[in-house]
Amino acid sequence: MNTTELQSRLRAFSAERDWDQFHTPKNLASALSVEAAELLELFQWLTPEQSQSLCADPEFATRLGEEVADVLLYLLRLADVAGLDLNAVVERKLKLNAEKYPAELARGHARKLDARKDQP
Amino acid sequence: MNTTELQSRLRAFSAERDWDQFHTPKNLASALSVEAAELLELFQWLTPEQSQSLCADPEFATRLGEEVADVLLYLLRLADVAGLDLNAVVERKLKLNAEKYPAELARGHARKLDARKDQP
Amino acid sequence: MNTTELQSRLRAFSAERDWDQFHTPKNLASALSVEAAELLELFQWLTPEQSQSLCADPEFATRLGEEVADVLLYLLRLADVAGLDLNAVVERKLKLNAEKYPAELARGHARKLDARKDQP
Amino acid sequence: MNTTELQSRLRAFSAERDWDQFHTPKNLASALSVEAAELLELFQWLTPEQSQSLCADPEFATRLGEEVADVLLYLLRLADVAGLDLNAVVERKLKLNAEKYPAELARGHARKLDARKDQP
Repeated sequence: MNTTELQSRLRAFSAERDWDQFHTPKNLASALSVEAAELLELFQWLTPEQSQSLCADPEFATRLGEEVADVLLYLLRLADVAGLDLNAVVERKLKLNAEKYPAELARGHARKLDARKDQP
Repeated sequence: MNTTELQSRLRAFSAERDWDQFHTPKNLASALSVEAAELLELFQWLTPEQSQSLCADPEFATRLGEEVADVLLYLLRLADVAGLDLNAVVERKLKLNAEKYPAELARGHARKLDARKDQP
Repeated sequence: MNTTELQSRLRAFSAERDWDQFHTPKNLASALSVEAAELLELFQWLTPEQSQSLCADPEFATRLGEEVADVLLYLLRLADVAGLDLNAVVERKLKLNAEKYPAELARGHARKLDARKDQP
Repeated sequence: MNTTELQSRLRAFSAERDWDQFHTPKNLASALSVEAAELLELFQWLTPEQSQSLCADPEFATRLGEEVADVLLYLLRLADVAGLDLNAVVERKLKLNAEKYPAELARGHARKLDARKDQP
């Protein structure tokens, strides 16, 4: 996926509609959160097993794909507006995660070395 | 950004920690929503102007980058577990957005052609 | 629970700290969403069964209580700032829900009569 | 507002529809988060000023009231299912907040005494 090119397309899409005035980092963070919740809504009453098996259903997969795309597009737009280097922040976070969750200690349970938060 | 390769790395990271048992689509959708809210938290009390100017602050940008990366990594992991073709869903959504928000009609305001939702 | 009295206390709490400037409806809606996600975070990796049994654990119940209170307090504050009559909006919504989900049709499954959304 | 009586009505509403199977604490926490995001969606593209003035618009207030009610009803249901004493958790949290944000120190800015989080 060419995220740089996607960001250019989103920039043009916004400019053509005179939407830059709405696309503050704060508003885009809200929109991202709203879209993530719309994605979660698809799963909210499902059992874990149903959440897996339904992904093989074409109709469900189509709806899920739309929500996944919405989240990704707002995230790319926010990163662009905020001037972030996506590759750099991702590599940095992967390194932090490897330090926080050493494989030998984190195996099969969901705890950070140092913290309050369950996070597999 | 090579999202396919990132998904492979996340797959290995999870397997090494025996975390696949936690990574149901439903749980990953929850985690994604939680991370999106952590990103929003950075902006919640800021004015629109502060949300823009703070992105130039290195300390703020570092924290923002971590949250952006968290959202992206869970999104990639969810798309992988759900068997979605990320490029396909993104292209499909961009096409839908172009139909829903024709440039000449959407200019400078935030309404879909057909719907309840404000969305620039 | 005396929600009117709670709203008065929250109003005074905010005024004493000169926080009314931050408490726009938009900001309070963001804060509410962030707190709801912190509540969700407690459950994100749990099985349905664990999510039930853990509520009997005093330490977990204390953390859950804090998040529930945070959500409730921001909701009361938002309703106050927005000038809503909480009792009226709740009674109206209960009536709408009874119409949307007639008991004889909604039994054991999670669909509205008319809509896209799974919602028990 | 008689929250205990509301919880009884929600309990009956769920039982009549055989929905208790869906109402695990985890699922209700997801639903709460989804509803909080629907509330946020109403504000996502608004300026702070618009978010205040629109609350005086009857149509907007009606939609806002529905979302506020949805959040409150899921919160009451979750507290009931989890066996929480709402009054107790609220009083405890108000006490904690008064300690974390002493009026003389918190005046006009949004920082806890001890923490990373901006929170008026």
